[in-house]
Amino acid sequence: MAEPAIDDFYAVIPAGGIGSRLWPLSRADAPKFLHDLTGSGQTLLRDTWDRLAPLSGEDRIAVVTGRAHRAAVERELPGVPDHNVFLESEPRDSSAAIGLAAAILVRREPDVIIGSFAADHVIRQTRQFDFAVRQAVAVARAGYICTIGIQPSEPSVGFGYVKQADELIVDGAPEAYTVERFVEKPDLDTAKAYFLDRAYLWNAGMFITRADVLLAELAVNEPELHAGLLELAEAWDDRALRGPAVDRIWPGLKKIAIDYSVAEPAAEKGRLAVIPGHFDWDDVGDFASLSKLNSSGGRNELAILGEDARVLSDASSGIVVSQTKRVISLIGVRDIVVVDTPDALLVTTSENAQRVKGVVDALKLTGRGDVL
Amino acid sequence: MAEPAIDDFYAVIPAGGIGSRLWPLSRADAPKFLHDLTGSGQTLLRDTWDRLAPLSGEDRIAVVTGRAHRAAVERELPGVPDHNVFLESEPRDSSAAIGLAAAILVRREPDVIIGSFAADHVIRQTRQFDFAVRQAVAVARAGYICTIGIQPSEPSVGFGYVKQADELIVDGAPEAYTVERFVEKPDLDTAKAYFLDRAYLWNAGMFITRADVLLAELAVNEPELHAGLLELAEAWDDRALRGPAVDRIWPGLKKIAIDYSVAEPAAEKGRLAVIPGHFDWDDVGDFASLSKLNSSGGRNELAILGEDARVLSDASSGIVVSQTKRVISLIGVRDIVVVDTPDALLVTTSENAQRVKGVVDALKLTGRGDVL
Repeated sequence: MAEPAIDDFYAVIPAGGIGSRLWPLSRADAPKFLHDLTGSGQTLLRDTWDRLAPLSGEDRIAVVTGRAHRAAVERELPGVPDHNVFLESEPRDSSAAIGLAAAILVRREPDVIIGSFAADHVIRQTRQFDFAVRQAVAVARAGYICTIGIQPSEPSVGFGYVKQADELIVDGAPEAYTVERFVEKPDLDTAKAYFLDRAYLWNAGMFITRADVLLAELAVNEPELHAGLLELAEAWDDRALRGPAVDRIWPGLKKIAIDYSVAEPAAEKGRLAVIPGHFDWDDVGDFASLSKLNSSGGRNELAILGEDARVLSDASSGIVVSQTKRVISLIGVRDIVVVDTPDALLVTTSENAQRVKGVVDALKLTGRGDVL
Repeated sequence: MAEPAIDDFYAVIPAGGIGSRLWPLSRADAPKFLHDLTGSGQTLLRDTWDRLAPLSGEDRIAVVTGRAHRAAVERELPGVPDHNVFLESEPRDSSAAIGLAAAILVRREPDVIIGSFAADHVIRQTRQFDFAVRQAVAVARAGYICTIGIQPSEPSVGFGYVKQADELIVDGAPEAYTVERFVEKPDLDTAKAYFLDRAYLWNAGMFITRADVLLAELAVNEPELHAGLLELAEAWDDRALRGPAVDRIWPGLKKIAIDYSVAEPAAEKGRLAVIPGHFDWDDVGDFASLSKLNSSGGRNELAILGEDARVLSDASSGIVVSQTKRVISLIGVRDIVVVDTPDALLVTTSENAQRVKGVVDALKLTGRGDVL
């Protein structure tokens, strides 16, 4: 029998970010979280929702997203209450997005514990994910800001790391640790050393905390941002006041990742905790990771994404993403990445997957933004 | 001042053959000869016509092509007289195509000398081509069947070879030789040996001969085919008789290349001559050769074919053929071949270019002939 939802817990899904390294699949009007990248038959956003609903209850999931994505979000998540969709007039990074949710929710429920989880990550082994979140909520209830760090499955240079320190004794959280520090994406030698040293976990951007604790940390480190968010939250649940407040305040908020505004300062003060997550996690940052995610691990495998894909492969491996009904024929190309969309085609290799963002920048510069 | 057209000379352009190794660019309804593969701004068929018109005169070029291509041929060659377009009801190989032209033309002019030149080859250095043809006509006038063999520019395994033997003394043909034998496409070691031995020339499929001499050779080696062609030719210039004769006779004609029905037997009897051609020639047999043809020779070059091509390349080389208005982005792919058409996409490498035909066969077998 499934465990009941967690008391006082609210899930927050920041659904922003285009995923430029997945161009031309991901676009301004079709960001990463609105794609099915796993062949599950539904979008990553919907997968995220399905994962969180048993933990918080369907009525207690808030989505922070751009105004342009409102219709798509409501279509994907028919169960989301209207008052839990927080619309940004423009992207202002994660401190503003998560801080806004915290400020709104704490006015509704002073003791609320929020957990923020990106809309476009892939997680398998839901049971282990559940267990980690339940522990993290127990730690948050004790006044800590808690993250879930992923036990690395390989020496990745694509993620930041969280270094765990001492065991933290909290009821209901047998695996809690304090965090010594955050580390940016390392070079390969460093990543290999981290991989052997079990204390380094991947920073998956999951934060679980009392909303008031998060806001207090933000007040110290980013007082102006904090003040703006409180002012916004005060107006939020009054329909007449909300729109003008967003237009007035939101565009002036500082753009800063929550890692810098909240998590790292909290770590320095010993107020940040971590639960090691023993589940498969991927942020699907580029086509190399998308390719790996959709293969069973064989070197000579060709992964195919796309409902109507008509692919003919001869001695080829890598990934094909097909968004058209065209016949796609590959002959003797290894570790290839082919992304076929109605107005743009990308051909590259897994090795070059990180360079896709450069193409997006070049398209902007050369006046071909119509395909972005 | 340009030399006058050659007396008694008629040019014949067999415009058949889809060019399967150039799929999905070449198709049943858009064969190789109807494409601009050199960036010249016109089709290979038109290039061929322009090359031959000064030698034969515009009124003396016959085109042998499929009924399906009649409109395209007339559009490309507005100067071709209606009575010089010989339509096949279905492809029956080169002996039938060239033999039909010979049989029709010899009835109109008993002394006619025909020269047959494929519609889909690329030739540069027209002055040298002219000189070779004029010599070949002189040799043909003396009763020989004459071919033009191309001085190899590299040890190619993609072409057959003609081995020249003794000097042949004919007025107006200072470079004529008899032919010792024909050789099929060799392996690389053999090709290297041929390249060093200057007596081996590429077989470019050009034959220049009196029409009656060609027909006499055919009568000996393929009497049934010969009889069928004579019967067809007899009906040809009577509009009422032509159609029924084609429908009755053409589908039963033996499919055989003119190399086997005429040229090789003639070589054995010492009746085949060759003029070495000192010009750039390519049959554009696959995308590797198309790529080379459209680059200036640099290893790191990316050739782009297509009027509306919108290509963005980062550290890539090879060839892109664009028949759509899509943005095509290449990152870090070397010697790549990308052919982008409205209903089919091919991604391969120069090294695998010869395997494209296999894909065409596989598409047929798997019921996807709609894109062929």
